[in-house]
This record gives sequence, C-alpha cells and structure tokens, in this order.
Amino acid sequence: MAKLLYEGKAKKVFEGDKVGELWQEFKDSATAFNGEKKATIAGKGELNAQISSALFWYLSSKGVATHLLDFDGQRSQKIIQLKMVPLEVVVRNRVAGSLAKRRNEKEGAELNPPLTEFFLKDDAAGDPQLSDEQAASKLKDFNLDLETLKTKAGEINSILQKLFLSVGLSLVDFKLEFGLSSDGRLILGDEISPDTCRLWDLETSEKLDKDRFRYDLGDLITGYQKIWDRLQTKLN
Amino acid sequence: MAKLLYEGKAKKVFEGDKVGELWQEFKDSATAFNGEKKATIAGKGELNAQISSALFWYLSSKGVATHLLDFDGQRSQKIIQLKMVPLEVVVRNRVAGSLAKRRNEKEGAELNPPLTEFFLKDDAAGDPQLSDEQAASKLKDFNLDLETLKTKAGEINSILQKLFLSVGLSLVDFKLEFGLSSDGRLILGDEISPDTCRLWDLETSEKLDKDRFRYDLGDLITGYQKIWDRLQTKLN
Repeated sequence: MAKLLYEGKAKKVFEGDKVGELWQEFKDSATAFNGEKKATIAGKGELNAQISSALFWYLSSKGVATHLLDFDGQRSQKIIQLKMVPLEVVVRNRVAGSLAKRRNEKEGAELNPPLTEFFLKDDAAGDPQLSDEQAASKLKDFNLDLETLKTKAGEINSILQKLFLSVGLSLVDFKLEFGLSSDGRLILGDEISPDTCRLWDLETSEKLDKDRFRYDLGDLITGYQKIWDRLQTKLN
Repeated sequence: MAKLLYEGKAKKVFEGDKVGELWQEFKDSATAFNGEKKATIAGKGELNAQISSALFWYLSSKGVATHLLDFDGQRSQKIIQLKMVPLEVVVRNRVAGSLAKRRNEKEGAELNPPLTEFFLKDDAAGDPQLSDEQAASKLKDFNLDLETLKTKAGEINSILQKLFLSVGLSLVDFKLEFGLSSDGRLILGDEISPDTCRLWDLETSEKLDKDRFRYDLGDLITGYQKIWDRLQTKLN
C-alpha cells in the first residue's frame, strides 16, 4: 500500500508510483460549514470519483491541462503532483449560497457575466474570501497573475456550463483549484463534483448537489446519481 | 541516433525515447509558395526551436495543453506523439498575405473580432482553404468539433497577442496545428515561430517574420533574432 501523505475532509492523497505523481482517493465523508456538520455516506466517494474523472477527461478533450493521469474505475485517481495555489477560485453563474446571504438576494438570479471570487485555502481561518489584491499577493511564489486564473476559470466555466446545459442541469456555481507542475505548467487540480458544484435541475430547480446534505434537502446519493446518470448519456 | 520517421519542409521527426513520445528537429531550410522558393539559412532552425519552445512553455504556464515535453537548447524538442488533425488553423488579427489578395484589401487593416480560417494540410493539393463545413467533415475520426478548435485557437491568440504586444510586436496572423493524445486530450502541436506567424514591429511596421524571405524584404535571421531578443526580455 502506498504511503499516505495527506488526509483531507473529502480525499486522501498517497505517494505515487513514481516521482511527480500521486494517487488521490475520494472518501465517503461529507462535511459542511467548515467541518461542523459531518457524516459518512456510503457510495459518495465512488460517485464523486467517477463524476470528477469524467469531467476532467472532458476538459482535457477541450484542451484544458488537468492533473488527471488515470482512474481506477473505483475511487482512486493517478494525478500529477502540483505545487498548489492556496486559493479556491469560485465561479458563479447564478446567485446562491454565501453570495445570496452576503447580498441579501434571492437564490437563482442570473449573473451575466459570471462572477469570479477568490477564497484563501485555510481551514483554520475558515477559508475567508479575499479581495483581488489580497488574492494576487498569494501568487507571489507562483509566477502567475490573477488575470490568468480568472481567464482559465472562465474558459472552464464556458465548457462545463454548456455540457451541463445539454443534460438539463444548471451549473449555478463551482469551485476550482489550480497548481503548477514542476516544469511550470498551470494545471487544474483537485476535483469537480457535486461536492464542489451547485447543480440544479433546469426544469424543476431541484438541487442535486451537496446543498442536499448542508440543508437536509433529501438523500445526497439520489441527487449525485441523477447527475452521473445524465452526464453518462453525454459522455459515453 | 533515433530513427527518422518523417521529414517535412521545416522539421524532421524522429522516434522518441519511449512509446508515445517523439523528437522533432528544426531544420535550417526555408521554403515558400508551397515549396517553389527554397533556401538553407544557417541559424534558422535553432532560432525557431528556441522561440517555439519559449512560446509553448508560456502557453503551458497559462493552462494550454501542448505537446512540448523537453527542449535540448539547440534544435530538438521532445514531444508527445499525437494523432494530428489534418487542418491548419489560421488566426488573423490584421489583413495580410493571402487574405489581402483574396479581399483585394491593403495589408494592416484590423480584424476585430479576429478571423479564424481552416486550410487542409495537403501539400500535393497546395493546402487549400476549406469552408467551415468542409473543415468539420475532416474531424469525423477525432471526436472533436470545429467550435472547440476555434475556441482554443482564440484563447491562444489572446494569450500570444498580449505577450507580443508587451514587447512591441503586432501579431498579425499565425497558424496552429492540433492533435489528440492517445487518451483523447486535445493538444497543441507543431510549432509557433516566425515561420508560422506574421510579426510586425508595432512602431515601424517592419516585418520581422518569414515574409522577409518570401518577398526578399531583408535578412531573415536579423528579423527572427529581433523577435527572440524581445521575447527574452519578457520570458526570462
């Protein structure tokens, strides 16, 4: 068994088969509100690993550089080891979640152009939102500017928004994480799954993502499985 | 010495160190008008290899997936073996060359938004221009649509246009070639160099690219070296 390097809330990261590679394993744990609400949900890890693998391959087929090298078909992905940018890049196509609270607006209002926000990856600090200036200051060691991250996130948003639309889902918002490879390439890392996206049914506005867990809206697996079933009609 | 797999007008392609990789070597030959005008120009291969390597790394640093794995610092690049799309994707920011002729317009007029054109990669047929419908029909075996190629070419144009602008050069037009990796990723291949771009000095409109050779406008190496000197101020 490979050596465990890091265990997060939703994934474990293991040493890879060779230098510059890692394995990441999707766990069945669900957490919300910075870890205050917790549960173990059988099947979540495998569903997210499948969904995230399919979305990463799809992005690759559109020319986006991602960390995904291989997927074992269960819950583990072989990935490129990256120096991770300590930012969560959030793209919003509609008002929801913390933005609805901050703006005191109803959920669902369209944001056109989409809104890109940056949050510091720091559990202890509660992942605070950063101004563009604060976010830019976190990129000093990365030979990277914020505009590049925004542009790349916008490109990924266009690709995913169209994909989800084609299977009757509205991509309300989602979170991306990026890193640099040892040779300085900007690469999409982490995951894209119903844990990290808000996805609503286009017709009924039913929430199919982690908000089901956050706000006790219904069985989480049922929602995630609906997303995966629909994606498979398009991606297989 | 690795086995020569293919020799083109400007590059040789050799077997790679392992399956899925190749080496490509930049030659000193210059050709124009579909091979009718020919010369050997000492130093061209090394300059183009340096410029193209620097531009490909730069694109990688912006999240664009490219075929470049390594550069020996001279004239050879280690690259990912791709199934090449048989299209030349030409992006034009200003009227020049064949477009000026076709439209009977003066060179230099701005095209905003940029114009994307497709040409069939077929020396025997003289690389004819294709309609979007004809170009799309060439993608049948590639699980790829023309819109994806256009979007990706547009993204690369935005990145390169800004880069060249920052060193006082106008990116008038350029040609891209794409391919699919064995696992279905869309990847930028071939080269980006003064052989495949029109680059004019922003202030003087001096032509620094292969048009110097095509139309006997001055020493080719002098032009290419100016481009490389300026790029180095930005990329090193």
